[in-house]
Amino acid sequence: MTISKASQVFPRAEYLRRIAAVKAEMARREVNALVVNNIRNITYLTGYTAKSAYVPQGLIITSNREEPTFILRQCDWPAGLHQAWMDRANILSYPESLIGIPGKDGYDAVIDFLHELGDSNRGIGLEMNDLTAAQAEKFRARLPNARIVDCAKLVHWIRGIKSDLEIELMREAAAIADAAVMRAAEVIRPGVREADVAAEIYATLARGANGKPGTDIANLYLCASPRTGTCHIRWTEDVISQGSQINLELAGVRHGYVSAIMRTYSVGTPSDRLRRIHEAEVAGMEAALGKVRPGVTCSDVASAFYRTLEQHGFKKDSRCGYAIGIEWLEPTASLQVGDTTELKPNMTFHLMLGNWLDEDFGYVISDTFRVTKSGAETLTRAPRKIFEIT
Amino acid sequence: MTISKASQVFPRAEYLRRIAAVKAEMARREVNALVVNNIRNITYLTGYTAKSAYVPQGLIITSNREEPTFILRQCDWPAGLHQAWMDRANILSYPESLIGIPGKDGYDAVIDFLHELGDSNRGIGLEMNDLTAAQAEKFRARLPNARIVDCAKLVHWIRGIKSDLEIELMREAAAIADAAVMRAAEVIRPGVREADVAAEIYATLARGANGKPGTDIANLYLCASPRTGTCHIRWTEDVISQGSQINLELAGVRHGYVSAIMRTYSVGTPSDRLRRIHEAEVAGMEAALGKVRPGVTCSDVASAFYRTLEQHGFKKDSRCGYAIGIEWLEPTASLQVGDTTELKPNMTFHLMLGNWLDEDFGYVISDTFRVTKSGAETLTRAPRKIFEIT
Repeated sequence: MTISKASQVFPRAEYLRRIAAVKAEMARREVNALVVNNIRNITYLTGYTAKSAYVPQGLIITSNREEPTFILRQCDWPAGLHQAWMDRANILSYPESLIGIPGKDGYDAVIDFLHELGDSNRGIGLEMNDLTAAQAEKFRARLPNARIVDCAKLVHWIRGIKSDLEIELMREAAAIADAAVMRAAEVIRPGVREADVAAEIYATLARGANGKPGTDIANLYLCASPRTGTCHIRWTEDVISQGSQINLELAGVRHGYVSAIMRTYSVGTPSDRLRRIHEAEVAGMEAALGKVRPGVTCSDVASAFYRTLEQHGFKKDSRCGYAIGIEWLEPTASLQVGDTTELKPNMTFHLMLGNWLDEDFGYVISDTFRVTKSGAETLTRAPRKIFEIT
Repeated sequence: MTISKASQVFPRAEYLRRIAAVKAEMARREVNALVVNNIRNITYLTGYTAKSAYVPQGLIITSNREEPTFILRQCDWPAGLHQAWMDRANILSYPESLIGIPGKDGYDAVIDFLHELGDSNRGIGLEMNDLTAAQAEKFRARLPNARIVDCAKLVHWIRGIKSDLEIELMREAAAIADAAVMRAAEVIRPGVREADVAAEIYATLARGANGKPGTDIANLYLCASPRTGTCHIRWTEDVISQGSQINLELAGVRHGYVSAIMRTYSVGTPSDRLRRIHEAEVAGMEAALGKVRPGVTCSDVASAFYRTLEQHGFKKDSRCGYAIGIEWLEPTASLQVGDTTELKPNMTFHLMLGNWLDEDFGYVISDTFRVTKSGAETLTRAPRKIFEIT
């Protein structure tokens, strides 16, 4: 029996619009066939969200065919048929015999397909940032007559400007993230293990909000005293005590789309230092968001933040945000001084103001926002406060 | 203030033993300095489990120094100081100014360090499987006098044989995985959303078992009717119905170490087809485990499984398992016909018998086992049955 097609998150027209934007850029670069292997880009162009990217797979877009062709491992092929919007004729599998064998892998099937297309002696685009040295070499060696064009970040940049349908999913994801932030405030108590707080957060992120379940769990970081100077520790085996500070970073996920948030919790009265950095950062956040509108640059927004923070007597070494969308970070527009990317409506950012001031002290706050026609709309909405647990 | 050192999961002697094994292999390959950037290998050699590997970082092992040097991003440096076993003099940071800038990244700091060591004109080992083409090219370009040696999987193979201390963590992880399998049997009911089952599983995986919390969440796949022919879908927005089948794959995690398990659930009486494949697979599993002992090959174990399965009238296209350890899959020994890796005591495998027979029908069962001196010890212990929900 054939597997049914999942109810589609986006209409066919939305995918064709995305593909058309990719094809326009391919034409500009004289690329006849583009091999997309970055899984976030594959999700963007097909709707496929299964977690099979630990083995090679490829989406091939050619200038002369309407639908792309998705080539994936045999055991993942049914998930491709189920989730991707394309006709089943354009979803192909490679055999399990290409798994776990030195020197062979799924890219051999992708290259075979390029040869069959007759594109093997023309311009072939590869996402070089997403191929290992050995994989890139295989493409070069097996396509000796092709003109290989590095198309790293080609699709990433197109993803940068969201459609209203994508924004709606990010709103739903943001509501889930907010729910988890509020749930954490209910369960963080002296004597509770960090792992038990994590358990409640995960459960909330899966259950979702407003009748919309989370469809995946992105990263969770719960950095509690004495680890508030760190940013990427999941949690530990410790128990939360009176006086503990907890820095939380988490995200809701809807069909691949992520909205992230950071908030700080204090068990008992916050220290003066914590209060002062919180006030400075909220002021900086408001200054940054106040600067956002189409036409200003990432650098302008970052400068507004850093200037305000410094006026309050603090510094932050790390950048203050980045483009966000499918599976969290988009490696394109960066909220830092010197980034000249111009803001456009429906770009989305994680305004990431985590500030690790010292080895043993940090503070976090962040929100996910979109650029509107005239300013910024914050998607995450949890109160911008230190959550005091009393 | 300096950040405290976390209570260490392994004694210093354990890490020195691991490093000594790496150095012996470096000597054999005439490598003076090895740059480890695979995050699982970094965890193995340092105890660092923070999730910062989405930016470049490197662990440098040199033949003439006892401790390795860990170079990581400034904001992750406190986590390195906290978690890694080495002296703080051997944990270095690179500045935030190397983040988000085209053409520059943390590998520039790693290369600078190699130049300072004076090893820039000698044998330098790189994990080519874990570097993109552009990153590998940067090492070549900035170390023009070095003899670059591809050390892909050098550390992976050393990781393959666990110490008793590592096995103990995998036992704890297996108990957590078992608890989640049993919790799923309590919450899978007609009318319950797949997301709510996922929520309970995640919470169980974080809370842990026997007083030992999970320290991370690895992958979860909940592939329910009509998606039992797929293997890597997280879960969907659907509600479970009478007659649904649910294929579950999950794992417990303790300090980076993973034990994985798969089990199948049937809401109502299983179909004949499901019962028959279950009986065939359990027989195959017993045949495979019965074959395990030091000196036999992966191929021998796989053959025992496939032969038994075929005697029961079934076939399985995918391999029947792989080495497992830090963060799930180890890309080394593979349980498939033709893999001549010889089993040794304390090798650990995920005997992965998921069998996606048709686009719309599959069945899963798996356990994590270790090779003992005389046979196999199964670490996951949930009943090998179809969980019937009545």
